[in-house]
Amino acid sequence: MQIAGEMVIGRSAVLGKEGTMKAIDPSRNVEIEPAFGLAGAADLQRACELADQAFDIYRATGLEARAKFLETIADRIMDIGPALIERAMQESGLPQARLEGERGRTCNQLRLFAKVVRDGRFQSATLDSALPERTPPRSDLRLRKIGLGPVAVFGASNFPLAFSVAGGDTASALAAGCPVVVKAHSAHLGTSELVGKAVAKAAEECGMPEGVFSMLIGSGQTIGQNLVSHPAIKAVGFTGSRSGGLALMRTAAARKEPIPVYAEMSSINPVFLLPGALDNAKLPQAFADSLTLGSGQFCTNPGLLVGLKSDKLQAFVAAVAGTLGAKGATTMLTPGIHKAYVTGVSGLAAVDGVQQVAAGQGTDAPCAAQAFLYQVDAKSFLTNTALEGEIFGPTSLLVVCDDEAQMLAVAEHVEGQLTAAVHATADDRQLAARLMPTLERKVGRILFNGFGTGVEVSHAMVHGGPFPSTSDSRTTSVGASAIDRFLRPVCYQDVPSYLLPESLADANPQNLPRIVNGDLAWNG
Amino acid sequence: MQIAGEMVIGRSAVLGKEGTMKAIDPSRNVEIEPAFGLAGAADLQRACELADQAFDIYRATGLEARAKFLETIADRIMDIGPALIERAMQESGLPQARLEGERGRTCNQLRLFAKVVRDGRFQSATLDSALPERTPPRSDLRLRKIGLGPVAVFGASNFPLAFSVAGGDTASALAAGCPVVVKAHSAHLGTSELVGKAVAKAAEECGMPEGVFSMLIGSGQTIGQNLVSHPAIKAVGFTGSRSGGLALMRTAAARKEPIPVYAEMSSINPVFLLPGALDNAKLPQAFADSLTLGSGQFCTNPGLLVGLKSDKLQAFVAAVAGTLGAKGATTMLTPGIHKAYVTGVSGLAAVDGVQQVAAGQGTDAPCAAQAFLYQVDAKSFLTNTALEGEIFGPTSLLVVCDDEAQMLAVAEHVEGQLTAAVHATADDRQLAARLMPTLERKVGRILFNGFGTGVEVSHAMVHGGPFPSTSDSRTTSVGASAIDRFLRPVCYQDVPSYLLPESLADANPQNLPRIVNGDLAWNG
Repeated sequence: MQIAGEMVIGRSAVLGKEGTMKAIDPSRNVEIEPAFGLAGAADLQRACELADQAFDIYRATGLEARAKFLETIADRIMDIGPALIERAMQESGLPQARLEGERGRTCNQLRLFAKVVRDGRFQSATLDSALPERTPPRSDLRLRKIGLGPVAVFGASNFPLAFSVAGGDTASALAAGCPVVVKAHSAHLGTSELVGKAVAKAAEECGMPEGVFSMLIGSGQTIGQNLVSHPAIKAVGFTGSRSGGLALMRTAAARKEPIPVYAEMSSINPVFLLPGALDNAKLPQAFADSLTLGSGQFCTNPGLLVGLKSDKLQAFVAAVAGTLGAKGATTMLTPGIHKAYVTGVSGLAAVDGVQQVAAGQGTDAPCAAQAFLYQVDAKSFLTNTALEGEIFGPTSLLVVCDDEAQMLAVAEHVEGQLTAAVHATADDRQLAARLMPTLERKVGRILFNGFGTGVEVSHAMVHGGPFPSTSDSRTTSVGASAIDRFLRPVCYQDVPSYLLPESLADANPQNLPRIVNGDLAWNG
Repeated sequence: MQIAGEMVIGRSAVLGKEGTMKAIDPSRNVEIEPAFGLAGAADLQRACELADQAFDIYRATGLEARAKFLETIADRIMDIGPALIERAMQESGLPQARLEGERGRTCNQLRLFAKVVRDGRFQSATLDSALPERTPPRSDLRLRKIGLGPVAVFGASNFPLAFSVAGGDTASALAAGCPVVVKAHSAHLGTSELVGKAVAKAAEECGMPEGVFSMLIGSGQTIGQNLVSHPAIKAVGFTGSRSGGLALMRTAAARKEPIPVYAEMSSINPVFLLPGALDNAKLPQAFADSLTLGSGQFCTNPGLLVGLKSDKLQAFVAAVAGTLGAKGATTMLTPGIHKAYVTGVSGLAAVDGVQQVAAGQGTDAPCAAQAFLYQVDAKSFLTNTALEGEIFGPTSLLVVCDDEAQMLAVAEHVEGQLTAAVHATADDRQLAARLMPTLERKVGRILFNGFGTGVEVSHAMVHGGPFPSTSDSRTTSVGASAIDRFLRPVCYQDVPSYLLPESLADANPQNLPRIVNGDLAWNG
């Protein structure tokens, strides 16, 4: 498939006329052909209007048709073949195996949501029988959830497939019955065009209404903000920087009709090293691998280690120094991200009391990141919030605590996080138990004896957490429950059977588990 | 029980020292004794600190203990006896039967949430088994929902019991495991003190941690706004005016850590009169009864009628005029509400093209509201958004449409609503079917051949809706699912069994329906 520099507006491939931009190959720091045309106000208006018009038609499609649509998107993405991987490698600097894996993950997400749609449980069907003899009589009440309306999706730079045009936000919004308007990430425009056209092809093939999907190319300041402001848009999915997420939150809150923003922003993912776990000789290597995976460009990258002052901790640091020293520098996603990384690392290194204790190999290659581990004492950490900022890339900070009380204080001190890891053995269970209530309050996912990188796409996953890790801790952006973000309940009171939605019909034709008069009723 | 002018801070009854205020008897427009002491910054700080400290302890209580606490609150409210009803009558101008009914509803809500807690389904327990042989291996993942943290609750003027100190927001937040800090409504201070002390008594009796409940007395501008700004507060429940709700939303969004606000604000609850239903001779009386119920002071009051120009519609209006003419004026909740009502009605009457077509009986009694029905043609309505404003009280506006297309346009034109009613027979099914998709997008509850007043407290109820009827259409403030507002998911990855919460234990000791590897597993 040729890359033409086009966006997707409903059923049309459109070459934007408001200027052009090109993607960049970060490994060489050069622009790549072709030029992409930028969207103007009319393009944005057309995409939003089509989405608005498509909403009632799309949400009325049967569960099977909607599930099939999601699966067809996955098929059409696979159909692109090696051209997709090649272009994504060029645009992101990420290696082939990683991108092939990510493509698999993207398709798995779409297929997971197809299953979620077929299951139908997301509708939360709930029935209360009429009680005509009661004083006062009770009406027949039935509840189901429906989609919020058209959703604006902002792709992430660090997952050009799995968190982008047809990534988790798009899959879960489409599953919820919501049309999607994507703003393509400027870091992977060609990848976006290929995937965007695959989605459009699947929509047409499945007979979905025009406007169920569009993808715009343009700047965040104009197209991005105006998309969030558009009255047709009813929710926003975003993965990116804290400043970017906060800007969208402000725009959404300032609308005449404020709308929910699901922004996944920043997280340093504290890792608590309890004494027993430091006997694990594999830990330094596992940490160094997680830290440098994908050049450290993961929301769940272990940016903070917390340990108790001891010889064992010193030995751990020494081992990390050895392991990290063998790690070569790797290309980051964009020149901008690389620059921010270098600035962030210098800033950290310049703080009083912070010392470098391990480093990866340096390089002169463009946009390549050198890994680092820094160290600071807990007292300094607790009194300097600057040490808590996310450095996006392969750098971590070890906080050395004098005692358990100080470790608990560090846990209490950190902001909201996507994940926290506890490395512990059964010998550490008392301290681990004391950490748990704090971690439950602070993070979306607590993991033991592992690292947060590698976010399973499943039913029990939570990829979310208290602010500022996300804008809305009540949800997840990965896993089956991500669909809940784009749903709202509607109650049908004494509605005649011929007007009731299928999920609420007496005969339960979708064979759903339903709550009937407060109890779960199911023949499954 | 003597009313002492006190608030409740943890286990202490506290007389505020920052000035005083008194409740008003609206039927006589005079102040009632005693004076209530107002909270200062230290009182607010103490209540929030106690709530913060109570959170981990309270949320760790077992389901049975938490359910019992909710039931004990209901018991202690009933124990107050007639003194509660007498004081509430004095403060609200509402009649005895209504307030006794409301007390019953308040206790039923608490008991419903006790059942919801015992059922345990609110925890959304979800398990994905470890797949150690897979490439890459899958970890053991388990998800449950926990409380968000301390919740600030703002009582409503129009339900001094059911939407106030121990009303739906308090019941659902406590059920979710969240401590509650109430700001008492200044319109029913004595009622609030009686109920607040009953809650505190129940908390102590049930061995709940101090701070699980507090109730402050003070102004919205100072105590209200500062409560929402306090870092310990993690969510807000509010029922009241649009301006009040919007102010809290702004404050919550401007915090360092923005928090969710569940504000139930304004709604005009359109009622669509389809031709077949106009043959129902009981309809005019039913409408007039709903319009004037509780002096029209319901969020679900039928503030907008929409009909098709016809002789039958004229006959309906004539019948309403007769019925309404027999309705006496009734006392409103507060002098402020009465004043706003009079101003709202004058404003509506002054609009070009709006004519009065029915009126209740007038009166000179203080704070008493006369009922009205006004009429306007659809073309005027569609071009003048001023006609869409809520007039809180017993006044409604009939919009007369030339044809079905205009009726559909009116449905599409209105803002988000709590409810919409359709009066229709089987003969009207085509038009009703055309209305449904629009109503689903616009409202939280669609009801047929009834009026929205009288909100059932059950499992399938939705008392919520798109903005501006509420700040968050994803939820309901009445009914069992109201608990979802105060919950967030936490994922436990490879967490040792001795640290797992009971709801996620292998043996399923709570006998919950759980999602296991994507499928519902239940022995119920």
